[in-house]
Amino acid sequence: MNTLSKALQSKIDNKTKPLGALGLLEELAFKIGMIQETESPQILRPSMLVFAADHGITDEKISPYPKEVTWQMVMNFVSGGAAINVFCRQHDISLKVVDAGVDFDFPATASIISAKLARGTKNMLLEPAMDVQLCQAALDKGAELVTNEAQSGTNTIAFGEMGIGNTSASALLMHRFMNLPIEDCIGVGAGLQSDALKHKHEVLKKVSQKYNPKTALETLATFGGLEIAMMTGAIIEAYRNKMLILIDGFIATAALLAAEAFNPNIKNNCVFCHMSNEQGHQKMLKHFDAKPILQLGLRLGEGTGAALAMPIIKSACAFLNEMASFADAGVSNKD
Amino acid sequence: MNTLSKALQSKIDNKTKPLGALGLLEELAFKIGMIQETESPQILRPSMLVFAADHGITDEKISPYPKEVTWQMVMNFVSGGAAINVFCRQHDISLKVVDAGVDFDFPATASIISAKLARGTKNMLLEPAMDVQLCQAALDKGAELVTNEAQSGTNTIAFGEMGIGNTSASALLMHRFMNLPIEDCIGVGAGLQSDALKHKHEVLKKVSQKYNPKTALETLATFGGLEIAMMTGAIIEAYRNKMLILIDGFIATAALLAAEAFNPNIKNNCVFCHMSNEQGHQKMLKHFDAKPILQLGLRLGEGTGAALAMPIIKSACAFLNEMASFADAGVSNKD
Repeated sequence: MNTLSKALQSKIDNKTKPLGALGLLEELAFKIGMIQETESPQILRPSMLVFAADHGITDEKISPYPKEVTWQMVMNFVSGGAAINVFCRQHDISLKVVDAGVDFDFPATASIISAKLARGTKNMLLEPAMDVQLCQAALDKGAELVTNEAQSGTNTIAFGEMGIGNTSASALLMHRFMNLPIEDCIGVGAGLQSDALKHKHEVLKKVSQKYNPKTALETLATFGGLEIAMMTGAIIEAYRNKMLILIDGFIATAALLAAEAFNPNIKNNCVFCHMSNEQGHQKMLKHFDAKPILQLGLRLGEGTGAALAMPIIKSACAFLNEMASFADAGVSNKD
Repeated sequence: MNTLSKALQSKIDNKTKPLGALGLLEELAFKIGMIQETESPQILRPSMLVFAADHGITDEKISPYPKEVTWQMVMNFVSGGAAINVFCRQHDISLKVVDAGVDFDFPATASIISAKLARGTKNMLLEPAMDVQLCQAALDKGAELVTNEAQSGTNTIAFGEMGIGNTSASALLMHRFMNLPIEDCIGVGAGLQSDALKHKHEVLKKVSQKYNPKTALETLATFGGLEIAMMTGAIIEAYRNKMLILIDGFIATAALLAAEAFNPNIKNNCVFCHMSNEQGHQKMLKHFDAKPILQLGLRLGEGTGAALAMPIIKSACAFLNEMASFADAGVSNKD
């Protein structure tokens, strides 16, 4: 590997530009080259899996949107009218929508990958969101879906999500996996006002006090969601397949925290696509020593940050593959 | 206009996403809609003009690169091997290279727009970089080139530059147009080490003390460059043609400062594509109350920041044109 890392750095440094002048693109090119074990990395058949599921905790009114928005937005994905559809079309990313556990019966004709393991999680204020068997099944299903993508020749994968209530689940996972006070992990979600935010704090504090899971699997089962657990399994499997993994926003980064608890090396294959304004997300990114590609003030989820970062990631490969070196171009280097 | 601004904001707010959840993309969509006077803005035949010229001040050794790099890099642009070529190809941006005043005789067969008004500027440590007639000719030529682009149907234009020594010219323009101490306007350029940086400070301080131009034209003539003056004229003309103007890095923003001195409304048509780590550039962007699209640590020039921002700008138009509204999609809005 040492030989490759030297060759990659030398190739980057000899392009016709001042040393380091392409900034983060140079770091991305190096990273993708190392992951793909080549001096000429390429993004092949990029794929976006959007996992959707419902959350029992919505009974406690911790979101400004009704739970029905989960299935309604899934139907919007299927019709091609959501933000993630627009950005995936723009960047030739194959988009697949996965029903990981939505409390709705979708029409059989809808173009959805059916992986419904339950009709949403339980209300974790009353009982664990999932039992460990269900959580393990979600991890396994996520892995299976990524295996299919790998077999189709995908070497770059992104994950999105839809699930009213899933910022609450993610905040609790962050709280436990990063060992931070729950207050530090809660944001405004899809747009809570101050009274509602106070209520969310109270509910999540009570949930936190109720449980003391020991293992990563138990933690994910207790506080997670079906879409988050499936994404966690998908991330773990993507790493096994040496894929480049595009991490989107708060919820995807929470899934990565869970995946890291299973395998601490996974972060090496990840690029962090967007830093939101939510304090919790910024703390997570610091934990991963991430340099996010974009900071566009997005707070939508769905994988939109990852889709929007795709052209920058492709630019990183493109400059490495297509730019002339000083020698090729007959350009003088520094005095 | 008030009717359009309300209609645009309403169209943005009714897309299937939480209010404001697409962050900067929403601001961009609104801005481009207002510039194009439509609720359905589009990026048509985007064009990149890269202006190249030499600078007499390079006699004072204020750059780590020899002056010959200007023409060598122009030949690299012509061969398609520079970073700006790669990114323009990636994003279907028509790239044109303009010889605004390079001290070199290019082969007649090279695909370059010949607008050579002089073989570089004078050494401004000894005499003004240009006289006002030459500077006016450069402004006019820049305008003419943009008129041609407008006639071809281009509604979105970006500007890049190549000119060893042009961070020195830009620092002096910033110093005068923003009325800031010269020290606040100098950065490391293409990669100066500390002794050389001290020397650059000394030289530019002497240049500053030597002149007291009164008008915008005199200021631009005294301290500018042929590529900067041509870009300034191009920006002014792009505004007249109601184009969306993509502003790249430090040098392009210095040209915008000059253009603003001719017409303070021009900034309304500009999007700021990249914020570099150079303190001077950050101060300029603050002056324009800019929210830069990208922060990738680039310090290359050539227009690379503008080219890399293009897909984000297109995403802003795309979500506005293609996303479903809550009503279209049958998705419930907030309780």
